[in-house]
Amino acid sequence: MGDISSSNNGGESRRRSCWYEEEIEENLRWCFALNSILHTGASQYQDIALLDTKPFGKALVIDGKLQSAEIDEFIYHELLVHPALLHHQNPKTIFIMGGGEGSTAREILRHGSVERVIMCDIDEEVVDFCKSHLVANKDAFFDSRLQLVINDARAELQKSEDKFDVIIGDLADPIEGGPCYQLYTKSFYESTVKPRLNENGIFVTQARPAGVFSHTEVFSCIFNTLKQVFRYVVPYSAHIPSYADTWGWVLASDSPLPLDADELDLRIRQRINGGEQIPRWQDLCVGLNSKQSCQEISSKGNPGVH
Amino acid sequence: MGDISSSNNGGESRRRSCWYEEEIEENLRWCFALNSILHTGASQYQDIALLDTKPFGKALVIDGKLQSAEIDEFIYHELLVHPALLHHQNPKTIFIMGGGEGSTAREILRHGSVERVIMCDIDEEVVDFCKSHLVANKDAFFDSRLQLVINDARAELQKSEDKFDVIIGDLADPIEGGPCYQLYTKSFYESTVKPRLNENGIFVTQARPAGVFSHTEVFSCIFNTLKQVFRYVVPYSAHIPSYADTWGWVLASDSPLPLDADELDLRIRQRINGGEQIPRWQDLCVGLNSKQSCQEISSKGNPGVH
Amino acid sequence: MGDISSSNNGGESRRRSCWYEEEIEENLRWCFALNSILHTGASQYQDIALLDTKPFGKALVIDGKLQSAEIDEFIYHELLVHPALLHHQNPKTIFIMGGGEGSTAREILRHGSVERVIMCDIDEEVVDFCKSHLVANKDAFFDSRLQLVINDARAELQKSEDKFDVIIGDLADPIEGGPCYQLYTKSFYESTVKPRLNENGIFVTQARPAGVFSHTEVFSCIFNTLKQVFRYVVPYSAHIPSYADTWGWVLASDSPLPLDADELDLRIRQRINGGEQIPRWQDLCVGLNSKQSCQEISSKGNPGVH
Amino acid sequence: MGDISSSNNGGESRRRSCWYEEEIEENLRWCFALNSILHTGASQYQDIALLDTKPFGKALVIDGKLQSAEIDEFIYHELLVHPALLHHQNPKTIFIMGGGEGSTAREILRHGSVERVIMCDIDEEVVDFCKSHLVANKDAFFDSRLQLVINDARAELQKSEDKFDVIIGDLADPIEGGPCYQLYTKSFYESTVKPRLNENGIFVTQARPAGVFSHTEVFSCIFNTLKQVFRYVVPYSAHIPSYADTWGWVLASDSPLPLDADELDLRIRQRINGGEQIPRWQDLCVGLNSKQSCQEISSKGNPGVH
Repeated sequence: MGDISSSNNGGESRRRSCWYEEEIEENLRWCFALNSILHTGASQYQDIALLDTKPFGKALVIDGKLQSAEIDEFIYHELLVHPALLHHQNPKTIFIMGGGEGSTAREILRHGSVERVIMCDIDEEVVDFCKSHLVANKDAFFDSRLQLVINDARAELQKSEDKFDVIIGDLADPIEGGPCYQLYTKSFYESTVKPRLNENGIFVTQARPAGVFSHTEVFSCIFNTLKQVFRYVVPYSAHIPSYADTWGWVLASDSPLPLDADELDLRIRQRINGGEQIPRWQDLCVGLNSKQSCQEISSKGNPGVH
Repeated sequence: MGDISSSNNGGESRRRSCWYEEEIEENLRWCFALNSILHTGASQYQDIALLDTKPFGKALVIDGKLQSAEIDEFIYHELLVHPALLHHQNPKTIFIMGGGEGSTAREILRHGSVERVIMCDIDEEVVDFCKSHLVANKDAFFDSRLQLVINDARAELQKSEDKFDVIIGDLADPIEGGPCYQLYTKSFYESTVKPRLNENGIFVTQARPAGVFSHTEVFSCIFNTLKQVFRYVVPYSAHIPSYADTWGWVLASDSPLPLDADELDLRIRQRINGGEQIPRWQDLCVGLNSKQSCQEISSKGNPGVH
Repeated sequence: MGDISSSNNGGESRRRSCWYEEEIEENLRWCFALNSILHTGASQYQDIALLDTKPFGKALVIDGKLQSAEIDEFIYHELLVHPALLHHQNPKTIFIMGGGEGSTAREILRHGSVERVIMCDIDEEVVDFCKSHLVANKDAFFDSRLQLVINDARAELQKSEDKFDVIIGDLADPIEGGPCYQLYTKSFYESTVKPRLNENGIFVTQARPAGVFSHTEVFSCIFNTLKQVFRYVVPYSAHIPSYADTWGWVLASDSPLPLDADELDLRIRQRINGGEQIPRWQDLCVGLNSKQSCQEISSKGNPGVH
Repeated sequence: MGDISSSNNGGESRRRSCWYEEEIEENLRWCFALNSILHTGASQYQDIALLDTKPFGKALVIDGKLQSAEIDEFIYHELLVHPALLHHQNPKTIFIMGGGEGSTAREILRHGSVERVIMCDIDEEVVDFCKSHLVANKDAFFDSRLQLVINDARAELQKSEDKFDVIIGDLADPIEGGPCYQLYTKSFYESTVKPRLNENGIFVTQARPAGVFSHTEVFSCIFNTLKQVFRYVVPYSAHIPSYADTWGWVLASDSPLPLDADELDLRIRQRINGGEQIPRWQDLCVGLNSKQSCQEISSKGNPGVH
């Protein structure tokens, strides 16, 4: 068709017509208006897409599940990385189980003490896709301290003779029967993870949803499993808007995790590149202009880092 | 996040997650799974997008309304162009009101008799967008017989001193109060269109939905208006899948429109480039392997061309 | 929450928030705004729901597929019943394969000549649901000429010793491997249907989508299968808005089906209860005020009844 | 249509076909599968609906916005009511601005000390709708301590000569220009709310979203406004799954709000009917089997009640 002299460019024409739709559960959908579909690809394991969404910016979607969104992936990745590294006296060597997106490595590499990071992801195509398309992680992928290994994380840890100051679990969901399932078991933590930690080493893992209802799915289970393996275990959580849920992480160590908020704030400023500026996840609550009234999302109030 | 060793690449992962959604009416939506958003743009009048949809191929969307889809735009454009040109003895000069997409010109230019086509569209950006991105219309846009005019169709016809064998209305919707509205009135047909037709000239216009319920919106009205201006007026219609409705067109002339199906079939073969092959909209019913049982969509059975 | 003194009851508040969504195909959705969900139920075979939709009125949905909608089910049911019964000299006995909704029986019972209708549906709960909730079919369900049989239509026809003037196929989709599949085969038509037709008997079946693309799925196949079994076979189609597609039916007989439009119109007036008023599907095109210009949806122009 | 012998009652048939859809923002939708639409109504101010949703149970929707959902409304209402009443030495008289749903009154009436509750809502039809249909609030609506006033909350407070121990703001959104807007201003808090508080009285208000991004919309503003009017102001927040966001509340008083978690837990057990059982929002984290590791959603860790 053609001539559009009658176009009324108002109201209705501004309706959003392209949408990304995710099934959070079978009965629950979460839909983002789309600007564009930037890149799509597929590996032997899964489908990959990079979308440009209106509410959350660029979004990495794997097999129809949102992995991370530009405007709030920092919540997931900062909370995965910094509490563990800050509690360690001097973290030099880090092993990432998974992490192919590159954001976890990016946050680790902000710590000046870090000398070597191994990122062990099974899906080379995903890694290549992220390396090519996720601009925010470009520097991290080319940092000389980063060593990329394409392998199953368990196999890699088992054959490794190295030990690490911090081991980070940035793995997909522990679906029963799937290979990842074994990465969340007591025997895995006991016989594969713990032996690869240096003295005073710290293990941290993302632990799936930790909402008022959803924490019973996996989060509680991971916490309880880790308590059987490590002396000190601290769960913590934060709401991630693009996930439409509160997310959980669990810190575990045989050394105490005793830092208070002031000490953590000090280490943030001393150790993290850019930390002299208040980290973004703390910065965001200055709207309230009162540290003590905004504890949920600042390191002060973060239950996991008391 | 990262390692995807647990990915189950089955069932759920094949869910379609990106969708184009159109409000056919306030209470009715029509949604196409998306492969990609190929191009987006905006003119002073409207927003333009070229989407790659799974059910209907590439789709041109203007202001959130589907204009034409790759796999079935031929229904709209062939039925707009060919009945009029075939009923004319020797169509040489054609004026398109609107038509900036280029598909109407493409179908016109398949007629060997045609010497000059004026495409008069008000929105240069839409024309440029289609010229750049609609591959199927590329040859038409560069055909030396085509003359593009950026203007309001009414103003152009009023100032013109030329007459045409066929005038084709490929305009957007006659929204009351909008400029297009005036392009569907008795006075417009009488004082602007008819004087610009040569003797035995034919006017044809798309006439909006013509479904069992939707024909009362505009289709009947256009038909009845044209009957007050021309001696011979023939409405016709066809279901266009991507529009989720039956669409209508109206032929009008002061000369009789008497051709029977055999004569039309003959002219199709003689006059239309590629017409020696059965035209696509006839070809599609050979599944039934029987001309006489597939009358609805063949020229034989087309009510408008009896 | 509470006090709503600030409510702006305009624009946005009128957004439709409850929707029925149907997957026409995996990549294509059709969504109706909902007024309410009137009744839901389940049989041993399937889920049943009666919805009150804004665009199409009350809608019967079985297993997530729209079966019929209040405002346009007449198109399906009139075109299934009347062409067959009108072509018969004096239809007295009718067998419906399926038809548990009751609408097919309702249309049959409008024919004064009809003495006995057998409706043979396998799903008693669906029949009971429709009997209770579909007001338009209430009279039909309680008509003394109707005999309801709960059985597989094939088994019932095979064991029957009766013959019928018209047999009507109002069955669900011929899914390969499903029991219905066998109700669309040459051997079924030959050995089960045809022997149960009286002399001059007519068989008619719904034949799934018959759109420009979709007719190749099943419609063409049913037509071609019936041509191997009956001497005279006539396919026909009409756009059904709530199905978002053109639908097909096929008439078959060993006697000719020769009626012209005038004879059919005469019989409509003489035989069908309420037929002295123009039937609804013809009535709807008087907007055009011209029989001859509205052939697609009138009996005159219906390709199947030439 | 009819016979369904071929129905495959598996996979696809279990697709959810009826959905409630909410626009969280223009670019963000949140969709719940529906079991049924239980009741719909309309007042002079707004449309009301009670839906039965699969993910969140019965949901009250006003003007297309979810107000509260059966499975998690306790988060909103407990956090609105209990921190304020627990911090008061002996709360006897309570004024609710808004609250027509009845859930706020229900939580207040669990406190044995309470002698009189005034619920002042402007929309009688909403109150009647909730009284009739929200089973969980039935006892509260018929509690003799509850007095319902249909009026604008500001007008009612202005003309009142009573003073209250606790005033609770359970009002809709402070849309600029709407009447509610005035219920969130400094002058309203100063000249209308504060004078109606008894000595040691406490004001609490819901304060809209308090998520990492969304807190800047209104939450921070309410906090800062209240800080100009009251000596002690405590903001707090919790993730409410059905809202797809973290929500905020603000406590304000001219008396200190000094209770520690142990004292609060003690008062919960002593004062709240059913409080000897751990309140539900604390109970939900026992999956972690460790009070100290689950601070976010327990009263111990609630930032607002330190």
